[in-house]
Order: sequence, then C-alpha cells, then structure tokens
Amino acid sequence: MEASNNHLVIMAGGIGSRFWPMSTPECPKQFIDVLGCGRTLLQLTADRFKGLCPVENIWVVTSENYAAIVKEQLPEIPESNILKEPCRRNTAPCIAYVSWRIKKNNPRANVVVTPSDHIVMNVPEFQRVVLSALSFTAENDAIVTLGMKPTRPETGFGYIQADLSVASARNKEIFRVDSFKEKPDLETAQKYIRRNNYFWNAGIFIWRVSTIVNAFRVYQPGISKIFENMMDVYGTDGEQTAINREFPLCESISVDYAIMEKVEEIFVVPADFGWSDLGTWGALHEQVGKDIYGNVCIGSDIRLFETRDCIIHTTQEKKVVVQGLNGYIVAEKNNTLLICKLSEEQRIKQFSE
Amino acid sequence: MEASNNHLVIMAGGIGSRFWPMSTPECPKQFIDVLGCGRTLLQLTADRFKGLCPVENIWVVTSENYAAIVKEQLPEIPESNILKEPCRRNTAPCIAYVSWRIKKNNPRANVVVTPSDHIVMNVPEFQRVVLSALSFTAENDAIVTLGMKPTRPETGFGYIQADLSVASARNKEIFRVDSFKEKPDLETAQKYIRRNNYFWNAGIFIWRVSTIVNAFRVYQPGISKIFENMMDVYGTDGEQTAINREFPLCESISVDYAIMEKVEEIFVVPADFGWSDLGTWGALHEQVGKDIYGNVCIGSDIRLFETRDCIIHTTQEKKVVVQGLNGYIVAEKNNTLLICKLSEEQRIKQFSE
Repeated sequence: MEASNNHLVIMAGGIGSRFWPMSTPECPKQFIDVLGCGRTLLQLTADRFKGLCPVENIWVVTSENYAAIVKEQLPEIPESNILKEPCRRNTAPCIAYVSWRIKKNNPRANVVVTPSDHIVMNVPEFQRVVLSALSFTAENDAIVTLGMKPTRPETGFGYIQADLSVASARNKEIFRVDSFKEKPDLETAQKYIRRNNYFWNAGIFIWRVSTIVNAFRVYQPGISKIFENMMDVYGTDGEQTAINREFPLCESISVDYAIMEKVEEIFVVPADFGWSDLGTWGALHEQVGKDIYGNVCIGSDIRLFETRDCIIHTTQEKKVVVQGLNGYIVAEKNNTLLICKLSEEQRIKQFSE
Repeated sequence: MEASNNHLVIMAGGIGSRFWPMSTPECPKQFIDVLGCGRTLLQLTADRFKGLCPVENIWVVTSENYAAIVKEQLPEIPESNILKEPCRRNTAPCIAYVSWRIKKNNPRANVVVTPSDHIVMNVPEFQRVVLSALSFTAENDAIVTLGMKPTRPETGFGYIQADLSVASARNKEIFRVDSFKEKPDLETAQKYIRRNNYFWNAGIFIWRVSTIVNAFRVYQPGISKIFENMMDVYGTDGEQTAINREFPLCESISVDYAIMEKVEEIFVVPADFGWSDLGTWGALHEQVGKDIYGNVCIGSDIRLFETRDCIIHTTQEKKVVVQGLNGYIVAEKNNTLLICKLSEEQRIKQFSE
C-alpha cells in the first residue's frame, strides 16, 4: 500500500440539533469543543488520522455556511480541499461529489470516509483497524465498513449483520456483510446483541475511489451522471458555480440506502476502539469522565453542591454554581441557557424552536 | 411647608451580596433592574419621590466606586450632589456627612433619607405618607421614621414599638416610639405581630437637617466633630480630599444604634404602601407577579416546562429554557450562572466565594 494514495474524507455538514444550545445551526457540534479538551470534534477527527495520509489528501465536505469555520479549525489542509455543498442532500451526493473530485486528482486514491462528530477513545487501535482496512482495499476492489461491537441494545443506530463463518483469505479480521439493518425496535435490538455477528454501523467507510465511483454508476446513475458531467470543472475556478447549479439536482439519499444496501459484496471489520457517535447528551454523559457523584462538568469554573448525575456544559461561562440538581442537563452558549432533565432530552428540538 | 426646602437623600453604598450573581460588588442590586421593568432600584427610588422635592435637592451617598454608575442612572441630578464615601462606615457617618453637606447649602432643609434598594408597590400612598411626615417635621423639631405594618413574623428586620394610645396633636397618623427592637428571634417576632403596635423599621427617616445635626452633636460627638470641622470645604474643590482623609476616621455604626435608640423623642408613621426591602431572592419571589405555577420570570425570552415556584432572573440571556424544576433560583449575569434551591439561598454568599 502506498500511503501517498491514502485520502481522508470528513463529512462535516450536519446541523447537530439534538445538542442545542451547545450546538446551533450557526455552529453545529462538530465545530465545538464538546469534550472540553481544547479541540473540536472536527479537529479530533482529523487528529486521529495523523500519519495515515498526507495533509494535502484530507478533504472536508461541508455546507458553504461552515467553510470558514472548517478553514479556521483545520488551517493545515489546503483551502481547495474544503468542498462546499450549496444545500443538504444527505450522504450519498456528498460522497459522490468528493469521490469524483478526488478521482480527478488521483484515480488510484484509497479513501477513508468518516463523520466529523464522533469520538474514539482508543486512537492507536482505531489507526490499526483503519490501516488494516486500507491495506485490504488497496489490493481489492471492495467496499469496507467498520462495525462497532455493540454494548447495549441501542435503537438509534443501524446494524451490520456479518457472516463470521469465513474471514477474508487476505485479511483475517475482515468479513462479508450478510445485510444492513435499519434502526431496529428494542426487541429486535436485544435479539441482535444476543448474537455475536451484529455490529453498529458507524458510518465509516473504506474503499478505492474507483470502487465507489463504479458503485454509484451501477446503483445511482442519476447522481453519477451529475458528477461525471462536471469532470472538466473540478479543481478549476468554475467548480463552485457548477456545483451550486448541479448539486441541488441530486436526490437526497443516504449512502447506506443508495449504495450499501444494494451492493452484493461488502465487507466489515468488527472493531472495538471506544467509539461513540455522541448523538445525545446522554451519550456524552456516558462517554466522558464523571466525578464520584456521576457528574460531567465541561467548563472552566463549575462548582457543584448536592448534585448528582448531571451534565454541565457551560464553556462560555466564567463561573457556574449548581446546587441540588439530580439528573439534569445544564448547557449554556451564546447567551442561551438550557436546564432540562436528562430523561427529557428528546424534547430539546421542541425546546429550541 | 415650603417644597423648596425639601431634600431627598438616597443611601446607595450597599454591596448586595445576597443576590449573587445578579448583584455583584462591581454592580450591586440598587443599580440593577431587579424587577425587569426597565428601571433600576435606584431609579425607582428616585422616581417615587417625583414632585416631592426639586431635582437639585436630591442627594445620593455612595461608594466612590459607584459614583459613575449613579451619574449614569440619575443624569438629572447635579453631579456635585453625588457624595462619595472613600470606605464603608455603615449608615451613621453616611447620614452625618450628607446632613452637614446639606446644612451648608440650606440650614432650613427638611430631609427624607431612604435606602436605594427597596421597593414600594403603592407609590401614591407612599407619597401621601412622606408628605404628611415632611409637613410634620417642617413644623416640629422631630425625628420621624416610617413603620411598616408587618405581614409575617420576619426575623430579618428590626421592629419599632409605637405608643398608639396618643396620636400627635398636629398629625393624627404620627405616634411616639416606645422603643426600637433589634432583629428578634422567631418566637419574639410572633409575639410582636400578635400585637398591633410593632412595625418593621424600613430605614426611612424624615427630619429637619438642624434636628439630625443636633442629635449627632448630642449622641455622637466624635462623628459630629469630624463633619463640623469640614464646614468650610463642603461644596468646594477641596471637599473630596478632606472627606477621603477624615471619613475613614469615623466609627462604623448604624444610625439606628448611634441615634435612634438613644434619642428620647422619636415618632413613627405606621404605613402600608406595599413595601419590601427585597433582601433575599425569597422576598423578590414574594413581591413580584407570578405565573399560575408560582414562577417569577425576569428576562427577555424565558420558556418554562413543568416548572413551579421558581425565580428565573436572566436579563442578559437571549433565550432561556427551563424544564422540570421546582422551587429553584436560576440567575445569570456577567457569564456567571447560579442554579440553587430557593430554600438554600442563605448559602449564596458561600457559593459566590
């Protein structure tokens, strides 16, 4: 495998509405130091690929509204590698755009695609798994996904059913996918985790650019044609104008539905590197270090009295005192304050309106 | 009574530590729009004396640190009427200073002294009572206090015991004071309110300037001498320098203890004009209009869900959402946030340290 062919694609167009008010449409959660560690989720995402590919091979696809934030947060990557979607069209058009764009530069590119707002605790293991998958796709015309070993019957994720009976001859930790399962109900999720061959779909994909472009040509000819027709303008001054005109014509469809569920031969690497999609305040509460009373405090000067199982995220406050709360979210940003029971966080979207 | 002799003294040197973080040493509660009505407590205090005296007869005694805030909030009063204490010495030196200062301008001045951080709901009745007392002191060499009819066995106030058997011959609502009582314990307070001749001491005094100056001469010769010796500098460029040098030499003592409890003949006007000292968050919660769930909301955009008996004071926040709180204070100012049970508010001083 030649590292100079390795490319990283970070999808950073989400709006993160479930983390209001920390996350807002003006600055969604991938651009926020959610963990209070000094790096935003986008920066942590780029960080954990360090050494796997040259910085000029890092691509970020985002909304045109967020391009300036991306440039500010990842100043090391070339500005022309920040691809700007004029509107939201889900993951399939996003991946198609960046794939054709990369293909124009390097038809032999070997690509990892990742969301920008997840966290990984065990980065060395993450790198080992990704390198292993990249080695495999470098040699094989294959679509590989990473499957997270489930720790609970989560109904918020899609699942990947693997055929663990036969490992790939070339890589002992890579298996064929039997099927992709959409978000299950609780009973089904409980059934899945009692088996050992169901994995959470983390939305991380590894493939050669030629592989995914061919898959689009077969299964999404409409989308393919749009990006194929722009081949001449990629990397030129006319690119953005063409994209602004053509991208909105794409069907809004996820890559799982558009490609993954249709392709016959897909592979999965079962993996366990402390992954979380940080999809909810509850997920953040579970992932981050807690004090002995079960509180997560992210902020500069937070003092708690008689407070348990709370998550306090107030990075813009100079000083916070909380007394007598049990099981609450306290979040403050841009002069917007939310206090709400953790058990009621599914109503946050309603609260923010 | 000649209205041009009427003077108003507003004592505005307090630091309001019990209302943290709304009130801070940099901007104590008298300078804050505590009620969310568009006027600070200091402004409301000046407002409710409108028509009782000319603006050039309004005096404010405050810390030198707050003089700029007073000037900004009361631009109509002459800047030279803002007297600056170089240090805190309780109310007796404060009142002595302003009394000698006024006496220099007008030895016939008839003065009302008031705290700056209380509220009055029934302003017409307040004006009627104050005018009645001013008429009385205009004709009599008397010290008059206002006694608030108590509504609960409050242990946080001093009480005035009145002799209701004989009204003054000249004014049927003015009675002699039998004695001043310091803050009582609960049992004593309960005893007081079962009688009808005990009143809360609101710290509002009415007297001719010659009367109070003479009382200081008799009962506080040390303080008197200090201010008598500066007679030549009042109203000159040398005033502040002299005050900065001499004022710190005064004993730190309240006017109640220094004068009221010692003078033989003091009068009280029992009054009922919806007074509150707003001494605690609880007092604010009681005084201000509540929604049907018992919540007081002071702030621009506060939305409550399943929330009862809370006080939300977040005037600097653009948007606040509170879900599932019962009996809490939520206060935000200058990027400082307090969430605490109303029942625990006596610990706020500790929280703020």
